[in-house]
Amino acid sequence: MNSFMIDKNIFKYTFGNPIDTETICLEGEKKDEQYIKFVKLEEGEDLNLIYKMDDSDIVYGLGENQRGINKRGYIYESFCTDDPIHTENKKSLYGAHNFIIIDGKDKFGMFIDSPSKVVFDVGYSKRDELKVNIEDKNVNIYMIKGFKPKDIVRKFLKIIGDTYVPPKWAFGYQQSRWSYKNEKEINDIANKFIEEDIPCDAIYLDIDYMDKFKDFTINKKDFPNFKEFVSNLKDKGFRLIPIIDAGVKIEKGYKVYEEGIKNNYFCSDKEENPFMAAVWPGRCHFPDFLNKDTRNWFGLKYKILTDLGIEGFWNDMNEPAIFYTDRSLKEAIKSAKDSEKKNLDIYSFFDLKDKFTNMSNNLEDYKSFYHNVDGKIINHYKVHNIFGYNMTKSAAEGLKQIEPNKRFLLFSRSSYIGMHKFSGIWTGDNSSWWSELLQNIKMMPSLNMCGFLYIGADTGGFGNDSDSELVIRWTQFSMFTPLFRNHSALGTRSQEPFAFDKTTTNITKNAIKIRYALIPYIYSEYMKAAIDRNLYFSPISFEYDDEISRRVENQILCGDSIMLAPIYEQNAKGRYVYLPEDMLLWKPDNYLSKNYKVVKKGHRYIDVDLKEIPIFIRKNKMIVKTEAALNVEKIEDKQLNIIAFVEDKAKYLYYDDDGKTYDFKKGRFSTIAIEIEKVEDDFKISVKNKGNRLVKKINFEIIDIEGKVYTKTISLEK
Amino acid sequence: MNSFMIDKNIFKYTFGNPIDTETICLEGEKKDEQYIKFVKLEEGEDLNLIYKMDDSDIVYGLGENQRGINKRGYIYESFCTDDPIHTENKKSLYGAHNFIIIDGKDKFGMFIDSPSKVVFDVGYSKRDELKVNIEDKNVNIYMIKGFKPKDIVRKFLKIIGDTYVPPKWAFGYQQSRWSYKNEKEINDIANKFIEEDIPCDAIYLDIDYMDKFKDFTINKKDFPNFKEFVSNLKDKGFRLIPIIDAGVKIEKGYKVYEEGIKNNYFCSDKEENPFMAAVWPGRCHFPDFLNKDTRNWFGLKYKILTDLGIEGFWNDMNEPAIFYTDRSLKEAIKSAKDSEKKNLDIYSFFDLKDKFTNMSNNLEDYKSFYHNVDGKIINHYKVHNIFGYNMTKSAAEGLKQIEPNKRFLLFSRSSYIGMHKFSGIWTGDNSSWWSELLQNIKMMPSLNMCGFLYIGADTGGFGNDSDSELVIRWTQFSMFTPLFRNHSALGTRSQEPFAFDKTTTNITKNAIKIRYALIPYIYSEYMKAAIDRNLYFSPISFEYDDEISRRVENQILCGDSIMLAPIYEQNAKGRYVYLPEDMLLWKPDNYLSKNYKVVKKGHRYIDVDLKEIPIFIRKNKMIVKTEAALNVEKIEDKQLNIIAFVEDKAKYLYYDDDGKTYDFKKGRFSTIAIEIEKVEDDFKISVKNKGNRLVKKINFEIIDIEGKVYTKTISLEK
Repeated sequence: MNSFMIDKNIFKYTFGNPIDTETICLEGEKKDEQYIKFVKLEEGEDLNLIYKMDDSDIVYGLGENQRGINKRGYIYESFCTDDPIHTENKKSLYGAHNFIIIDGKDKFGMFIDSPSKVVFDVGYSKRDELKVNIEDKNVNIYMIKGFKPKDIVRKFLKIIGDTYVPPKWAFGYQQSRWSYKNEKEINDIANKFIEEDIPCDAIYLDIDYMDKFKDFTINKKDFPNFKEFVSNLKDKGFRLIPIIDAGVKIEKGYKVYEEGIKNNYFCSDKEENPFMAAVWPGRCHFPDFLNKDTRNWFGLKYKILTDLGIEGFWNDMNEPAIFYTDRSLKEAIKSAKDSEKKNLDIYSFFDLKDKFTNMSNNLEDYKSFYHNVDGKIINHYKVHNIFGYNMTKSAAEGLKQIEPNKRFLLFSRSSYIGMHKFSGIWTGDNSSWWSELLQNIKMMPSLNMCGFLYIGADTGGFGNDSDSELVIRWTQFSMFTPLFRNHSALGTRSQEPFAFDKTTTNITKNAIKIRYALIPYIYSEYMKAAIDRNLYFSPISFEYDDEISRRVENQILCGDSIMLAPIYEQNAKGRYVYLPEDMLLWKPDNYLSKNYKVVKKGHRYIDVDLKEIPIFIRKNKMIVKTEAALNVEKIEDKQLNIIAFVEDKAKYLYYDDDGKTYDFKKGRFSTIAIEIEKVEDDFKISVKNKGNRLVKKINFEIIDIEGKVYTKTISLEK
Repeated sequence: MNSFMIDKNIFKYTFGNPIDTETICLEGEKKDEQYIKFVKLEEGEDLNLIYKMDDSDIVYGLGENQRGINKRGYIYESFCTDDPIHTENKKSLYGAHNFIIIDGKDKFGMFIDSPSKVVFDVGYSKRDELKVNIEDKNVNIYMIKGFKPKDIVRKFLKIIGDTYVPPKWAFGYQQSRWSYKNEKEINDIANKFIEEDIPCDAIYLDIDYMDKFKDFTINKKDFPNFKEFVSNLKDKGFRLIPIIDAGVKIEKGYKVYEEGIKNNYFCSDKEENPFMAAVWPGRCHFPDFLNKDTRNWFGLKYKILTDLGIEGFWNDMNEPAIFYTDRSLKEAIKSAKDSEKKNLDIYSFFDLKDKFTNMSNNLEDYKSFYHNVDGKIINHYKVHNIFGYNMTKSAAEGLKQIEPNKRFLLFSRSSYIGMHKFSGIWTGDNSSWWSELLQNIKMMPSLNMCGFLYIGADTGGFGNDSDSELVIRWTQFSMFTPLFRNHSALGTRSQEPFAFDKTTTNITKNAIKIRYALIPYIYSEYMKAAIDRNLYFSPISFEYDDEISRRVENQILCGDSIMLAPIYEQNAKGRYVYLPEDMLLWKPDNYLSKNYKVVKKGHRYIDVDLKEIPIFIRKNKMIVKTEAALNVEKIEDKQLNIIAFVEDKAKYLYYDDDGKTYDFKKGRFSTIAIEIEKVEDDFKISVKNKGNRLVKKINFEIIDIEGKVYTKTISLEK
């Protein structure tokens, strides 16, 4: 073990010869320490880090995973897995996010930088023991000290690099389905949004837009005039977002396949032939995304689509998912044939059935192929968790070459910490279950802790049939997530905002409009978090450290001013909320609503009608909104409308930029610093504009601690 | 349609020529009505009953089903199904319980007496529409009017007949696992309970105790001296409870099989050969339980085991579950062979996989066999939902012949309303998920509404690995369910009370001891509900009709005096509770605890440590407990200890009987009527003993509305 000090609070411990994941590129100063701070190290065939927990210790982190914001009581396996059935027993989802924070007598963060399997047993096997099992002994372990969980997270965010920033239009509502199959169907959907006066910025293309599921092709039958179609849709206000899959179809004459073969761009099997496994296109090869040349080649393929007017992509199936291989299919079929003549005893029958059920995403397959990293041949299993990461890195680097200063929409299903530098993620294939909505709420802050800011779930649920109430309640939560997309699977019930009755259409429309009205707040908070390396979503315990705040799992903070207490239960007409301090409850059913009420600190039960969204504005904080519009680019920022809850003094920094380029990195963004101060029986407002040329007027509704509303308007000087 | 009036509030509508399920045996007086009260009737190839719901309407009932106590928002299919994965999208579980209660502008109950598929769409397809789809147009529909949901339920309970009553020892804790495999393993478990001083009354035998899974056989290798073994265990205080499956193994020389063949006792296929399908024993035939002779024959087979000292049984696999048939296996294997040479496109691959995945419990199989009911040949699909019912009826009738006045323990997995006359049920194969614990809580009152009183779930969860906290919290709830059994599946983590750490052992032990101390209350409440045709568990809205009580889904009433607010979330250290009136919170961590606190009506947050159980005693009510013992028969009822929460006056009727026979039906039971009345600054107690010869003394702790504790003792006169 070699130990390094990165700064006085961050230590790095290197075992063996780790694969460079490029998540953290800091060497640090060599130290002589032979023990790891805080934990007991057990070294055998693998590494175990052991920490004794007190009953009151909380464990945060682990990004995209099941269960609570407090991860205690279960065991999580970082091994990116295409598994859409998110029952409580599942240990691995689509991402691998090896960062945890312990908050108790000791306070520290721990990042296990290993792209192979890592298991976090957080008091599951033994109630008071945290045990991290690291299979590959070539690993970097980072330990971060801090006074509070939030400090620790911010230190971690500092060392893992700047986050991906999407274009501003990607903060609009987005509509997806597997699949809107042809130009007419998509036009109908777009027209329906316009007709119903529901804002929407993007419509998605799932796998069927391709020719036989081949990446970077267009199925000409259904999309005969793709370029024109993309352009017409954009004129109507909608971007079209195609999916890109990880597997490349084996087909003579298919250019991507031919080039891949010719240049050795694919992962190979033991015999050094390209590794073959079946996914949507049938038998495929898999680009070796860990190889720089492959990444460069594949990334530039996105130009085929950007040349057709495409400005956003979603990378899918990049765990990589495997439906079957020749090996697993052969084995299963052989089992079936062998059993044909037998009077099967029941366990043999289950064995036979299992052969078919367990064919997909089989460990044996993941151990049977190889990457070429700088000439070194590495078994896939050792680097499994950075495959999707590197596919998405390839896309991001390609897009950067294609149009260097343009922000593209890009997000991925599979991920590893560090990938946040290149894209957002969605939380994968969920189900139309209420439990998934609650999981979505809990997952958001955990993902932020691991660096991922542009995030969201399939609103309404992907698999299984949704219903109107679930779509409404989920929309009322997702309207706060940076990625705000409704998506559903083939064969399931339609779940667009207008797919149910008139009431549902109206309620979801109003929720979406509130989102658009809140874009000034959401975009400001997102961009400030991105630039300052901060959280957008956080557990309320990150700001309030009383005992009850530490227990809250179903309320989260969104940006600096808002506490969300979403409704996530069927038939609920209200819910309990814990308020660590007095807050202003804004419960709009439309974005112009003035339904304000001061709610005193403590435990409260609030009524929440189906059409209402409970938004708590923290004390001495404000939110900024404007007029909704049918898409983000149509939002006029001439007037901002502030709702402020002020006891003595509140500050807000409104941020804006061109929404399209990376110029903000060069300081080309505007801010308006707003300050409201209680002065005797009135409020004094000060506004400092740095470079904003759009906003002409700011309207204030200031609510004081007694609930009295003060209305004011400030005109901005030029 | 023929209409009948059973009494002025109960109407019966007969369509066609319904199969007699024997659930309700009342003809009623013929009426001329040509419409069904409350609902709109649509008659086509099937029947639809349609009812427009207001937003505030609540729909109760449906027994063993997913989702809320209020069933609104989903679609439920009554079609008994062996499906252990209880995700929210599942529509059918093990039972078929076609009774619903509408509570809104109209108040009525509706029982669809059809043993074929019935679908209840409770505002799922259309948010404001209840639609009941009845596939088989030969059906009796019962409509029950009432002023309140509870009235309606009680009227329904009156017409469906007396409930099954188990022996008193069956209210003790019961330990199960698939499987404790041999005498030694079971002895070890029993000894461990004794050593750890944990009460337990029964240990279970899952399928492996049989010889090759053959009903009514004993595997001699593992149980060489079964009779002696049963007797020795009983001496130690444990009953042994074997499982009985629905399928009979096809095996030359196996007596049950041979007799079944000889006498035509099995269900037959289209060619009039015995229907064959594979379950645990491999290929099986299925006794035609709808046939009286078959029932009589099979029921008397239980004598083989009662002769060996067995006093209780659980009937399993009686939906009936089918793993595969020759047809489905052949088809799947053919698919596999056909696909061998092809380059499968991906949808053909999924078709192939589905052939194997969907082999079990296949509708085509259920439609391919037949029953002989009084000479009439009936397709199984038409009577599917009363198969398990009639298996259990067969057992109950058999046991009644074997020992007419002895109460046996008997419960079943599959069920239909009416089966409650013969046995209890457990809620089938659940999972070690927190969501299942909450579902368990919600399901209990719904099952009571459908007549089932002796009920409980697999505590700790059957499938998947459990953990110490889940076992603790689940035990703390199940200690109130009449059937209180911990059970887990093959290959999962051990989850007996002592399977984890010392703390867990102590906490679960104390919960189990509180159960034993509360047997006087639990048994009294159960027996009074059984005799008076009342509920043991009910939604709090059945007693309190304020708006918030109508919303509560996570608190239930248990007997007349207790409101339960269980902890069902991981890492929870407290919870919100709604109190419709002032109550006394008793939060014991052991049965002697005096941790009392008056909690004022309204919304409250309460701290609940892992070792504590929040028990709310309603105002002007009392509970009765005694000293815990290692098994129910060892409980000495010499002293009763009363905890009463009295504002002005409280009454309680303590019930007891021999616990072993049906003599209570002839009035051979004892009661002690207890009355506590506030008189100025003190309480006056009156006690009227009718026939109880055990109780010598009653100790009272009376807590007044201010929380002041009054301690008193009353000696019982002889």
